[in-house]
Amino acid sequence: MGERVDVAIIGTGPAGVSAAITLKIRNKNIALFGNPALSPKVDKAEKILNYPGLPNVSGLQLNGYFKNHLDSLGIAITDEVVTSIIDMQGVFGLQTKSNTIYEATSVIIATGISFGKPYKNEDNLLGRGVSYCATCDGNFYRDKPVAVIAESEKEVEEAMFLSEICSKVYYIPLYEEGKFSLNDALRGASSPDNVELVGSMPLEVIGEEKVEGLKLKAGDIEVDGVFILRDNISPEKIIAGLEMEGNSIKVDRSMKTSIPGVFACGDITGTPYQYVKSAGEGNVAALSAVSYLSEIQKNNS
Amino acid sequence: MGERVDVAIIGTGPAGVSAAITLKIRNKNIALFGNPALSPKVDKAEKILNYPGLPNVSGLQLNGYFKNHLDSLGIAITDEVVTSIIDMQGVFGLQTKSNTIYEATSVIIATGISFGKPYKNEDNLLGRGVSYCATCDGNFYRDKPVAVIAESEKEVEEAMFLSEICSKVYYIPLYEEGKFSLNDALRGASSPDNVELVGSMPLEVIGEEKVEGLKLKAGDIEVDGVFILRDNISPEKIIAGLEMEGNSIKVDRSMKTSIPGVFACGDITGTPYQYVKSAGEGNVAALSAVSYLSEIQKNNS
Repeated sequence: MGERVDVAIIGTGPAGVSAAITLKIRNKNIALFGNPALSPKVDKAEKILNYPGLPNVSGLQLNGYFKNHLDSLGIAITDEVVTSIIDMQGVFGLQTKSNTIYEATSVIIATGISFGKPYKNEDNLLGRGVSYCATCDGNFYRDKPVAVIAESEKEVEEAMFLSEICSKVYYIPLYEEGKFSLNDALRGASSPDNVELVGSMPLEVIGEEKVEGLKLKAGDIEVDGVFILRDNISPEKIIAGLEMEGNSIKVDRSMKTSIPGVFACGDITGTPYQYVKSAGEGNVAALSAVSYLSEIQKNNS
Repeated sequence: MGERVDVAIIGTGPAGVSAAITLKIRNKNIALFGNPALSPKVDKAEKILNYPGLPNVSGLQLNGYFKNHLDSLGIAITDEVVTSIIDMQGVFGLQTKSNTIYEATSVIIATGISFGKPYKNEDNLLGRGVSYCATCDGNFYRDKPVAVIAESEKEVEEAMFLSEICSKVYYIPLYEEGKFSLNDALRGASSPDNVELVGSMPLEVIGEEKVEGLKLKAGDIEVDGVFILRDNISPEKIIAGLEMEGNSIKVDRSMKTSIPGVFACGDITGTPYQYVKSAGEGNVAALSAVSYLSEIQKNNS
């Protein structure tokens, strides 16, 4: 376990970047979790016309400016996906996909909107065969067949890890370009022969008390576990008791959520999905976290 | 009276600039009221460290980037101070210091915080001797003595205008550099000898039913009218019925105020007073105004 930070920021889109910058300037100890190359969604924007001060930038350029700003302040990015947060009265424990635990006095959620709707039956069977973290839960499926639904190519590694434990791993890539990467992986020297590539869309998790299989467009497969590895996990699944409004985290104008010490900003707090709106909210969330830290310190002294 | 615009934006700080940019991109017809050199308050910032994407810019540079952005979109600034807004059921009438009326279907207030607390008795005697607009109300004080409390040098012109109507004009500059500018003005060929420079701080408006004088640190003067010419007029004085929260306009997360069709953004909506927070809110206010315009159009068709 690393040192406890003042604020853990989850997400490296415009909201998370903005929050990190303001917190750093306020001399807070932070951990910024996310993609070291920043938001791939921003990268893909061809032209951004309304980020004030930077007329007509591409998403790639904007991310470049953001990265430069982070670098100029010496802000590093922790390349980890946070899968769950536990509120331990005055300190939050953040568990990542690599099964590391980080500690933070407060948390800013800036994970963006997750586009993936849950699969039918996914929510019912969460913790009873459905998992979002191979490293955390893989050992529960020793010598059993599992399915891996992968939103991005980097989940190949998770599948390889599961192949060492489980009897069979069905790997279902939701991304096109990855179809070949897995084949490449399988062709490698250590390629496990118990991994099978499945090129069909998942429709529904099968089972009542526990997972019994996965319904795909091309037919059903029998598995005991379904690992759904999304780039974004719905925040209400990451931290218990977080009040939502539809698919957004409910916040007030100071970016407070329903949980004291937890703030949210950016697309995850709702429309409009705009870069400068997210950056503005990141700034507000950061300063609200600063106030929260002062209160905590006052109460502890 | 000019053509009716879709949205009138009042203020050229980061919030107003951001709102104007987004509205222009959404092809709305706008009028942007404010200082053509943008916010003097931003100009004065030595270093801005947390406007994401522009590390370590000066306020002067940030305003330069903003101006460049406005220019690149062909957004002009109307150099007028809005003194009152009248809600005329589906259209707003905006009166300016030059006594021009503009019409707009919706309004975004982005005037920043007005630092000036009202003088003692100012609110009581507003409209009964206290005025915020020489051009609008000057004629009520024909052949009478008046005082002009001027927050900036440009009010010299207002004093000159009043000197043509009133028997006597006491000019009280609240800015240092102006002390000499008025002297310069008075030394000019057409300098009126009924203008007197007063180098003392105003304390209180004197009078019960109507203005009878002005109490200054150096003593009282007898006047029938007091023109208080601030750069920012408190928004609740500009538009009747606007719900406030302390010194801020009450808004929800979509930047709606208590008056349908009127939105607010930036420092005037409350803390934190931060550039990127203001810019983010300007963007949100703009898109809320866009939604409002669609609704109006739907209801009218």
